[in-house]
Amino acid sequence: MENCIFCKIISSDIPSHKVFETDDFLASLDIHLQSSGHVQVIPKKHYRWVWDLPAAPSAAQAGVPGNNGEYFSIVHKIALAQRKAFSTDWILSKIVGDEVEHAHIWVYPDRNVKGDMNDFEGNAEKIRQNLQ
Amino acid sequence: MENCIFCKIISSDIPSHKVFETDDFLASLDIHLQSSGHVQVIPKKHYRWVWDLPAAPSAAQAGVPGNNGEYFSIVHKIALAQRKAFSTDWILSKIVGDEVEHAHIWVYPDRNVKGDMNDFEGNAEKIRQNLQ
Repeated sequence: MENCIFCKIISSDIPSHKVFETDDFLASLDIHLQSSGHVQVIPKKHYRWVWDLPAAPSAAQAGVPGNNGEYFSIVHKIALAQRKAFSTDWILSKIVGDEVEHAHIWVYPDRNVKGDMNDFEGNAEKIRQNLQ
Repeated sequence: MENCIFCKIISSDIPSHKVFETDDFLASLDIHLQSSGHVQVIPKKHYRWVWDLPAAPSAAQAGVPGNNGEYFSIVHKIALAQRKAFSTDWILSKIVGDEVEHAHIWVYPDRNVKGDMNDFEGNAEKIRQNLQ
């Protein structure tokens, strides 16, 4: 979508520190940090709200590509990697969505974790190394 | 788990305004409201953190009962019902988790929605009527 900052991140017109990517979703570091390694997960297709994506299919169904089941499973995957990367059990996740009109989910460690919040590439690499 | 307030809600030792329930999850109104119809979704089994639940299976897998795929699909279902019940597109969801040591996800409409925040039973019923 024209003039959408997240669509420009997806098209690489705006650079980002990617930590994980599928055909339908991109996880990269958020510039407006809540804490070290604050990740934002966004669908590559432009949706206004998280709740506008197709619902997660039941386990028995094939499912529409890019559905919310896949979306949340990526959030979970990032959270588990952040736990290891930043040595904390406490990972927060928020869906708010009024700031940028493209669906996005934040996932970030608690603010007490050690390390340099502004070392974007170092923190992205820590998360990437702990993805499973 | 003994002395866990959410386990007591699940066992009905503490009453709650239920909006939706499966074998493994309970969605009921949160007493500490962010807005009208603020719902909290909790797993019936005691987990400390949302990230401790089994991961969502891929669509092709049978999946462990009570996994995060089902968990998040319930959050999505509640959000869609709240949109209709409170005539807003904007639904927030937060995973924080330091206040009560039992996994929980908040789902609630923006604070500008009309209605009486403290009409718990009326708001629970509005959500139940809009579940699909």
